[in-house]
Amino acid sequence: MFKKILIANRGEIALRIIRTCKEIGIKTVAIYSTADADSLHVRFADEAVCIGPPSSADSYLKMSAVLAAAEITNADAIHPGYGFLAENAKFSKLCEEHGIKFIGASAEMINRMGDKASARATMKAAGVPTIPGSEGILETYEEAEVLADEMGYPVMLKATAGGGGKGMRAVWEKENLKEHWDAARQEAFACFGNDGMYMEKLIEEPRHIEIQVIGDSFGKACHLSERDCSVQRRHQKLTEEAPSPFMTTQLRKKMGEAAVKASEFIGYEGAGTVEFLVDKHKNFYFMEMNTRIQVEHPITEQVIDYDLIYEQIKVASGIPITGKNYIPKLHSIECRINAEDPFNDFRPSPGKISTLHIPGGHGVRVDTHVYAGYSIPPNYDSMIAKLITTAQTREEAIAKMRRALDEFVIEGVKTTIPFHRQLMKHPDYLAGNYTTKFMEDFELQPEED
Amino acid sequence: MFKKILIANRGEIALRIIRTCKEIGIKTVAIYSTADADSLHVRFADEAVCIGPPSSADSYLKMSAVLAAAEITNADAIHPGYGFLAENAKFSKLCEEHGIKFIGASAEMINRMGDKASARATMKAAGVPTIPGSEGILETYEEAEVLADEMGYPVMLKATAGGGGKGMRAVWEKENLKEHWDAARQEAFACFGNDGMYMEKLIEEPRHIEIQVIGDSFGKACHLSERDCSVQRRHQKLTEEAPSPFMTTQLRKKMGEAAVKASEFIGYEGAGTVEFLVDKHKNFYFMEMNTRIQVEHPITEQVIDYDLIYEQIKVASGIPITGKNYIPKLHSIECRINAEDPFNDFRPSPGKISTLHIPGGHGVRVDTHVYAGYSIPPNYDSMIAKLITTAQTREEAIAKMRRALDEFVIEGVKTTIPFHRQLMKHPDYLAGNYTTKFMEDFELQPEED
Repeated sequence: MFKKILIANRGEIALRIIRTCKEIGIKTVAIYSTADADSLHVRFADEAVCIGPPSSADSYLKMSAVLAAAEITNADAIHPGYGFLAENAKFSKLCEEHGIKFIGASAEMINRMGDKASARATMKAAGVPTIPGSEGILETYEEAEVLADEMGYPVMLKATAGGGGKGMRAVWEKENLKEHWDAARQEAFACFGNDGMYMEKLIEEPRHIEIQVIGDSFGKACHLSERDCSVQRRHQKLTEEAPSPFMTTQLRKKMGEAAVKASEFIGYEGAGTVEFLVDKHKNFYFMEMNTRIQVEHPITEQVIDYDLIYEQIKVASGIPITGKNYIPKLHSIECRINAEDPFNDFRPSPGKISTLHIPGGHGVRVDTHVYAGYSIPPNYDSMIAKLITTAQTREEAIAKMRRALDEFVIEGVKTTIPFHRQLMKHPDYLAGNYTTKFMEDFELQPEED
Repeated sequence: MFKKILIANRGEIALRIIRTCKEIGIKTVAIYSTADADSLHVRFADEAVCIGPPSSADSYLKMSAVLAAAEITNADAIHPGYGFLAENAKFSKLCEEHGIKFIGASAEMINRMGDKASARATMKAAGVPTIPGSEGILETYEEAEVLADEMGYPVMLKATAGGGGKGMRAVWEKENLKEHWDAARQEAFACFGNDGMYMEKLIEEPRHIEIQVIGDSFGKACHLSERDCSVQRRHQKLTEEAPSPFMTTQLRKKMGEAAVKASEFIGYEGAGTVEFLVDKHKNFYFMEMNTRIQVEHPITEQVIDYDLIYEQIKVASGIPITGKNYIPKLHSIECRINAEDPFNDFRPSPGKISTLHIPGGHGVRVDTHVYAGYSIPPNYDSMIAKLITTAQTREEAIAKMRRALDEFVIEGVKTTIPFHRQLMKHPDYLAGNYTTKFMEDFELQPEED
């Protein structure tokens, strides 16, 4: 086991990692920018090194500074958390070259999974379903017609130069394909000066469901069941739950097996997440693999009584996993509390927290680095707390979340608490009936007072 | 189910009860003395009624004021929490007469269990083991000798007028009985002017182990396993854990059965605790039954994923229990954080909390009513928080407790945190090797800084 771990991160995840290290008796080194000098991760670590000014590029992303901090403190491993350098192949490589264990994926794995095309090719080779579609640009309309017949309708036409929905068309029946093909090409040309089109299978009522995996250095992997992260706004997850209300025992088995197969195929070492899109027919398709701990890892910990940071450290220090897959026994929900104004297009709201009351009691977990008097710097991520509730059933976990949100008092900055309050009363959310499109139609109501 | 519950208490337990009521959709009424006007239980309840000045006798213990508050707010039930009116037979009776459900034991049961002699006689009749001893005063030395032979050594001689260990003698062998008998009588006479003696079986290396029970209104009871509360100072529990490190499957079965038998014998309705003394040979003896929720109930909730306040409310509203006994799946420890100075004979330290950081993360639960800026009134109990950690093993729960204690920052008042920090490193505690005598030899070390 390691003697001293440097945590190349800040905020709640830095604190989260320090907590586990303290529990298992590993010394910790915090690094911090000058904007974070008063942070709890600095206070609670055994040592702390200031590595630069507020700008991430000059501090948390500055590899030479992070490595120097590890070397002067004699850290034998670096935990990158999520974000920053967590999926940086060059940094992983540099750590290796400096004889410091990077608690995460190897440079090779990061490269293999970091690039979309390469990840997709790898998954295809591993036999994991990927979203069917054309290999590159469709040369002719006839080619499009043949492929659509092969895959089955509905299909999605997409401009290769596209973005913001331009040059994109959903086609539900063959008789409309020609008309949409022409319209999409014209639009793409008008917008981007490029009418190159490709085609994908249209995922009906897509859900973002991800499988947590752990692989060890002996080539063995297992899965810890799923998290449903479909409630997203501009690809930012807002709340997650485990298990997914959409899940069946059969589907979990199939998706779990696919995720383990994917991990073992690439010899994945560490904690990782295989993200899938699942359609309303319960077909699932590989989206991407995150080669790091996720923000939403606590809900998995809650439903299986398992410390994932500890597992990462064990695997990184060469301890084999048991290989047992874990099935959730409880239900857990996480709400990301961000310093953002949900009534103002979720605009960041940095500033000083004047009053703080953190909810507690049965089934409530809070992971946060803030305290009364803390100033949220404008330089980083706006997430200031993760509120997690756990109970025997989904209904109870939602009821607990509602009361915990009501109890959560943060004054001085705007937060997403009012959004979560309304979400936890939304009929479709309550019915477990939501897709990645959910937020497109969500209308925040003015708060009663 | 009830529509509105008045909570006849304050502090963390009032908040605890409000939490469950919110989760299950029952309205709440807080009562408060003028000393508690700024308390969170007042803020979080749906309604709040001021019932008097700071003195408990004129507020939380004033039955007429509490009942009047329930009547003007149309509460259909009263939850008394622990302490104050929780085991007051007269109050239970008054509630009944006013048509308000008392969420606790009936006047009859409280009377039956409230008086030591009556509780002991009831348990004997139920076939639950009680501490063997003389029925009242021993008339002659010969009588003492016969009884000691019957019970077996060691025995305890106690002065009927005794107190503070005066006139008390442990006798380990028959040959020493006469000598101790004479000495104890002389001492008792000298101290109290009364040399009446009685005798009890000496409980070797006693542990305080209690069984949580729940009985319903249909005469059925079940148990939820044990809590070890042996770490006590002047009969005040300091920390508790579930399961007991001393417990075996066999002993749990026997003690659980005895507790269920005791509850069903008296037709006990509600959540209750049957307290036993257990000797080093694993003999167990009934001490008393608490006809209310205990301070330490969260550790039971943690190891069985069960909300005990909800169970109390269900049973009180006439819902039958399943009757299934619960065996712990996890390990949980509670440290009572009191505003007391452990370096100064645990003297109360009321005052204003200037800085507060509450620990969080995986496996940590905090039940507290305090916040930064809160003034702890000198009028009540000095407990300001319950810190509870839960993990798969005892070792992990202790490791979590250590790191959570290190993370717990309370400035402005003295607290028992330094005591708990040292306790969690004490070799005997770590070995699970402690009895109710543990604190007699515990020496607090000056804090390093």
